[in-house]
Parts: sequence; C-alpha cells; structure tokens
Amino acid sequence: MESITPQPLTAQRFAPFGDVIEARQSSALMINQGTSTRFHDLAAVDVGAEGGRALVNIFRATPYPAPLIIRMMEKHPLGSQLFMPLHGHPYLVAVAAAGERVESQDLNVFLAEGDQGVNFYPGTWHHPLLVLSGKQDFLVIDRGGAGENLIEYDLHSPLVLALD
Amino acid sequence: MESITPQPLTAQRFAPFGDVIEARQSSALMINQGTSTRFHDLAAVDVGAEGGRALVNIFRATPYPAPLIIRMMEKHPLGSQLFMPLHGHPYLVAVAAAGERVESQDLNVFLAEGDQGVNFYPGTWHHPLLVLSGKQDFLVIDRGGAGENLIEYDLHSPLVLALD
Repeated sequence: MESITPQPLTAQRFAPFGDVIEARQSSALMINQGTSTRFHDLAAVDVGAEGGRALVNIFRATPYPAPLIIRMMEKHPLGSQLFMPLHGHPYLVAVAAAGERVESQDLNVFLAEGDQGVNFYPGTWHHPLLVLSGKQDFLVIDRGGAGENLIEYDLHSPLVLALD
Repeated sequence: MESITPQPLTAQRFAPFGDVIEARQSSALMINQGTSTRFHDLAAVDVGAEGGRALVNIFRATPYPAPLIIRMMEKHPLGSQLFMPLHGHPYLVAVAAAGERVESQDLNVFLAEGDQGVNFYPGTWHHPLLVLSGKQDFLVIDRGGAGENLIEYDLHSPLVLALD
C-alpha cells in the first residue's frame, strides 16, 4: 500500500484548501484597555448557501484504529467547516483540492499543532478528524440548513499514514 | 464600594444573556464511523445585521489589575459575540440584560469553567474578558462589517468582584 508522511501545517501550504487559524502577529490588534490582543479575522466562514446558517458544535474525537489508513474522503459543497482544538494537542489533517473526485495521489496530509485550527473551504475534500491519542475536543463551526451538504468518496487505493 | 460574588455558570442561569457552549449529552450525536461525538448546534451566531459577516478571531487575554473592579460595560447591538477558551482555565463573565443603560445592580457575574464557552446575544451588556491568571487564548466569533457595533457605558457605581 502507498504511504504518505505528514508535513507541518502552515498557512501557505494550506492556502489551496482553506484557512489556518493561529495567532499571527500580522493580524494583531490591542484591545480591552491593553489587557488583550485580538488576532483579527483569521478564517472565512462561508455557510450562507441555499439559506444556510452557522452551527456551533463541539466534536469529541477519538483515534481511528492503528495503523492509520485513509480509505475515504468527504466534502461539504454548501459550506465551510472550521475545527479549533480545545485541548491543545497536535492532530492530523488530510485534504485534497475541491473537485468531482479524489484519489490517493491528490492527498495532502498535515500535522497541525495544538494551537492551530483549520477551516476547510466549501468543497475541499477532507478526512474526518484524525486525532493521535486520547479523547480530544474541537470547536467546530459549520453549516446547518436544507440541501445535500455531505458527499463521501471511497478511494480506489487506500493510503497509509507514515508516522514516526 | 458594593461587591458581587460570582456564581457558577449554567445554561439556565445564562439564558437571558446568551448561550453556554459545552458538551451537553442532550445535544450528542455519534459521527465519523463512531470515532467522534458531535455536540450539535450549541449557540446562535447572529451577525448578519446591516450586511455583517462572521469574523473568526483569537483573543489573547491577560488579567485586569487586582482587585477586580467593574467600572464599565459594553455591548454590540448588531451582532452576537462568542468566546471559547482554548487553554482550559476558568474565567469570569460579567453581563447584564440588553437595554439602553446598565448600572451595577443589573450585573450578573458568573464563574465559567475552562470547558465552557459563552455567546452573548446582540445587545447583551458585558465586560471585556476577565481571565484570572496568566495569558489565555479564546476563539472569538463576532461580527464584521459597517455600522456602529460597539457601545461602552461607564457605571455610576463601580462594583468590586469578591473572589475567594
């Protein structure tokens, strides 16, 4: 089986797929009588298609069985989906550019640090949450409303994740 | 000076002011091949007034000088504002019901646990972030766009927070 090694998550590498939510100095503003820094406008929430609205959720994720094998991907054509870790642990993000289909050679796998969130643009192929250990909570902002907003696709060739 | 003692934050107590974002079993759904639990639709994001849009931000907060004294409150008439702690520490939330004015006798102060977020409804009076120690990050979802969305009000009688 083919394998893929995760690369560190950066905003630049992730740009084709969505936003990285992190405290970048370029976005910093002082507020609240100088007691707080606001890292401003870090992600494009896009949930209004077909009368949609923003949902706020907590996802409590546990690891998939080892070894980690990517067998399927999913996408949400009508809305963005944002994940922000609440427990501060690294996790994996498997994505591929929007399109009709997705195959293993299209995949990019990133290692996100525990202080980095991701926001998938509408239509970005992604794997469900890939935490590395334990039980981990994420704040998730995605789309609610009518319409078909979940498409799943089984890869013809599963891909194993090579972890150190 | 008058003083007020924080009470534990619960969804029921907070209902007049906004939502509490927490992993309540009543909202739980199993997803992702059984690896995750989705605590579904926990807060009403309301940012569309006057052409507004959702902003995603990180606030990095430090404590106000001790003793903690509430001298002013603010409100955002055009949009909700959501705070979710990213470092898991308790913090304080000072609020009062929406209205033209706010005075110290209108205030409610809650002690939020580190796994509880809050979402202020549009117009809810609130104090800027009140963390209790160190430097703490919050994910913040609020409104961007034209229009006057910040109103501050100085209390006639400041209120001291009685902490154990």
